[in-house]
Amino acid sequence: MVMKVYGAVLSTAVQRVLAALYEKDLEFELVPVDMRAGEHKQEHFLALNPFGQVPAFEDGDLQLFESRAITQYIAFAYKDKGTPLLCEGKPMATVSVWMEVEAHQFDTAASKLQWELMFKSIFGMATDAAVVEENEAKLSKVLDVYEARLSQSKYMGGDCFTLADLHHLPVLTNLMGTTVKKLFDARPKVSAWAADIMARPAWAKVLAMKNQQ
Amino acid sequence: MVMKVYGAVLSTAVQRVLAALYEKDLEFELVPVDMRAGEHKQEHFLALNPFGQVPAFEDGDLQLFESRAITQYIAFAYKDKGTPLLCEGKPMATVSVWMEVEAHQFDTAASKLQWELMFKSIFGMATDAAVVEENEAKLSKVLDVYEARLSQSKYMGGDCFTLADLHHLPVLTNLMGTTVKKLFDARPKVSAWAADIMARPAWAKVLAMKNQQ
Repeated sequence: MVMKVYGAVLSTAVQRVLAALYEKDLEFELVPVDMRAGEHKQEHFLALNPFGQVPAFEDGDLQLFESRAITQYIAFAYKDKGTPLLCEGKPMATVSVWMEVEAHQFDTAASKLQWELMFKSIFGMATDAAVVEENEAKLSKVLDVYEARLSQSKYMGGDCFTLADLHHLPVLTNLMGTTVKKLFDARPKVSAWAADIMARPAWAKVLAMKNQQ
Repeated sequence: MVMKVYGAVLSTAVQRVLAALYEKDLEFELVPVDMRAGEHKQEHFLALNPFGQVPAFEDGDLQLFESRAITQYIAFAYKDKGTPLLCEGKPMATVSVWMEVEAHQFDTAASKLQWELMFKSIFGMATDAAVVEENEAKLSKVLDVYEARLSQSKYMGGDCFTLADLHHLPVLTNLMGTTVKKLFDARPKVSAWAADIMARPAWAKVLAMKNQQ
């Protein structure tokens, strides 16, 4: 039975899971969830994810949610397929540190900027300049640490591309279409890393799916 | 060489790591970081954690930060010692889902409530009633999902105590000393689970260290 991802491709959390599946060259079915119609808050979806958020995921009898837990499952359960997303032979703990950094340092500021500078205009809402300023300052500090980190190793978790890089892709790519791009451009190592990971064929497949919407 | 935890025991992130070390019955040294004097922003500490946050951690040559990455390292690297914190034989992916839930659903609301209702009064600041109300509503929804989850299994990740439970302990225990306790008390399964995990001998050791401060 083929794996199933429940969600809409416009969701950055769904994109995170799709990127991992394409890196691993795994077959899957994207089961659309009509979020505009509130399908993610209906009983049949809440049975898959009680928090009513996309994505939800099924692999046979195993049901999962939370995008970063799903990508870790994919990386471990299918470790012999496609790209090794865990940098084997290197301490997994170091990859874990930088996965936590993405979730707790990068994403908190980056997601707020994405909301203010991208989604709000889609929904016809006004951008809050104070929130943008505050979170640009926070993101700048995070990217300063990234610049130093990427001077020591090619990727966040070490010398190979791992989930610690992949998890950044959806929000990072969206921010590159906003004025926040300047924060990445100002840092040569960060800028080269961003270009490198955004150029991955697996990520191009996710963007192609998104552009078909 | 004994493992080192750099930080102050009043930090909930430090407590998370100490709880894991005591569960595993591992020897360690707590190296105090004088946060009031801003030691965590000084160069020697930034070399251990470039984000200037406690804890930082050393096990021989391996240096880590981010509390949830450290606890995972401890659980995997010392899996044959003390409490098995990963529920072996059960899918690790399910434990991962509920670890992500703690980090992204529980902690976001719970940490804001902790700040408003506990730390602000310590620092002589006024509580913002609107923030409390908003986050009590968010935490209530999370605890509704927990109540359903804990009707299916004794612990968050399955039938045994894992990191998915342990990660809750520091903030949960602090909230039990505030008016937010009522949200836990109103849910029988959540209330029994909270009492169970707070009663663990390893956690009592962390609280004893905290009370010596």
